[in-house]
Amino acid sequence: MKIVVALGGNALEWRETNAIERACEHIADLSKAGHELVVVHGNGPQVGNISLAFESVKDEIPLLPLDDLVAMSQGFIGYQIQKALRMALVKRNLDIPVASIVTQVVVDKNDPAFLNPSKPIGPYYDRIEASKLAKFKGYSMRKEEGRGYRRVVPSPSPLSIVEIPQIKDLWDSAISIVCGGGGIPVVLDEDGNAHGVEAVVDKDLSAELLAEYMEADLLLILTGVPNVYLNYTKAYKTPIDTLTVSEAQKYIIAGQFPSGSMLPKIQAAIKFVLNNRNKEAIITSLDEALDAVNGRSGTHILPSF
Amino acid sequence: MKIVVALGGNALEWRETNAIERACEHIADLSKAGHELVVVHGNGPQVGNISLAFESVKDEIPLLPLDDLVAMSQGFIGYQIQKALRMALVKRNLDIPVASIVTQVVVDKNDPAFLNPSKPIGPYYDRIEASKLAKFKGYSMRKEEGRGYRRVVPSPSPLSIVEIPQIKDLWDSAISIVCGGGGIPVVLDEDGNAHGVEAVVDKDLSAELLAEYMEADLLLILTGVPNVYLNYTKAYKTPIDTLTVSEAQKYIIAGQFPSGSMLPKIQAAIKFVLNNRNKEAIITSLDEALDAVNGRSGTHILPSF
Repeated sequence: MKIVVALGGNALEWRETNAIERACEHIADLSKAGHELVVVHGNGPQVGNISLAFESVKDEIPLLPLDDLVAMSQGFIGYQIQKALRMALVKRNLDIPVASIVTQVVVDKNDPAFLNPSKPIGPYYDRIEASKLAKFKGYSMRKEEGRGYRRVVPSPSPLSIVEIPQIKDLWDSAISIVCGGGGIPVVLDEDGNAHGVEAVVDKDLSAELLAEYMEADLLLILTGVPNVYLNYTKAYKTPIDTLTVSEAQKYIIAGQFPSGSMLPKIQAAIKFVLNNRNKEAIITSLDEALDAVNGRSGTHILPSF
Repeated sequence: MKIVVALGGNALEWRETNAIERACEHIADLSKAGHELVVVHGNGPQVGNISLAFESVKDEIPLLPLDDLVAMSQGFIGYQIQKALRMALVKRNLDIPVASIVTQVVVDKNDPAFLNPSKPIGPYYDRIEASKLAKFKGYSMRKEEGRGYRRVVPSPSPLSIVEIPQIKDLWDSAISIVCGGGGIPVVLDEDGNAHGVEAVVDKDLSAELLAEYMEADLLLILTGVPNVYLNYTKAYKTPIDTLTVSEAQKYIIAGQFPSGSMLPKIQAAIKFVLNNRNKEAIITSLDEALDAVNGRSGTHILPSF
């Protein structure tokens, strides 16, 4: 099967070599089982640390916009995955090349998300620093109780992927690592030229878009838990094996899935199966990935028939 | 012609949008003239600033090895070039995709360069800081008169390029940006697995290696001056139009070309024409690039016949 794998940031803690190697072992197992893969990864801890580092030298080096920081994180994480995945493939006697492509994702400058920055990034600040950043840099700052102020940025929806021709060219011969951190967010001007914007694109939604472009058979969203659960915060939480689109929509309305964690994954899964009626999406953990693809675990999101 | 373009760091000062856009205008002119291109770029100012930023938070985030910093710079600079080059191509009605590939370059762990670190990187330190870094991080530090101490790292020769299959796959359909900063330096263990090393690979030598792999017709090295000169520091300096390998070798012995600036460019050019006897290498400036390719300017390095 052609699979787009979306790898959560929790699998890729800041340069935790073991975490990345472990993740790549599971991805290599999918390859060994004969599947063709493209990998999309998160970048939360990495872009946070890169942001923190440049904040600390802002008197010497003018602060970089977020699109530049995402680009750095793509090079950094892409390299880590290239090394570790290639190692895991060779161990399985698979001579498959791995490469990361620096990827820009187009968003709409009129996306309503720009009016409502919601995604926290970077370090915490005290009230005075926060108000300075708001005043002089135009940052939106939000108070998080007990921890201080944090910058929040818009999370607009991905509309298209600039480097899709190259990603398609490499599909048959290599495993590509693309759309890192959801992709570098850009808007297009009337001449079709890309300009970076201060935003973060949800990586599960970018992976979904990629899966449509690539006509993938499966969107596989890997996260910290083996299943989607009902009543996740309760003692009687229940793992879900299969979820139709209409059931999922019902649970969303009932507030079952927290925004910023499970909700965007469910939304990406719904979008994929609605647009590809004979295909499915799976949400599960790295450990369960292969079993889930074989139908033995994970939460399978299916169209409403 | 198939051309590997090696773009000097001076064309790409730290996020100087104008400098990058100007460079990309000249590269797009080469494309418009019908040439097929791959672009290799330097990363001196960028990796220096990234290094400085992480140094300043070393109490919070453990210092990153140099291979990680080079990987970050590839994502960062690759993105800048992708945007600007695509814009310059569209302006010329050329619908050619552009993509950056995160590139690892293999070096020999027994390369004598590891015994003689020579390439300065990152910020200047005072004597006390420098001796701490030497003691606790094992860095080689070198005094630069009047400016303080600076870290020096080995500059081993590139032996092979890990992502060459993907670079070849994209050659016909896109302009790829590869081997940024000379490539991420790795050594291979006995199982063929890559491990990052604390080194910097000369980008002109990596571009030369790439030109051989790609069977390019021309290695085009772009720098801050339109020509190689004899007696460069003297009032009577003379621009060179053509240079045979034997002449170049004679001038090298006479100390005409300073190491760390013109020397590695000449060495890369010599290597290319020695290994490809009916081809040539050109050293010139961005402004002169197209004229030089058309034989009207620049310094042309030719085999010794």
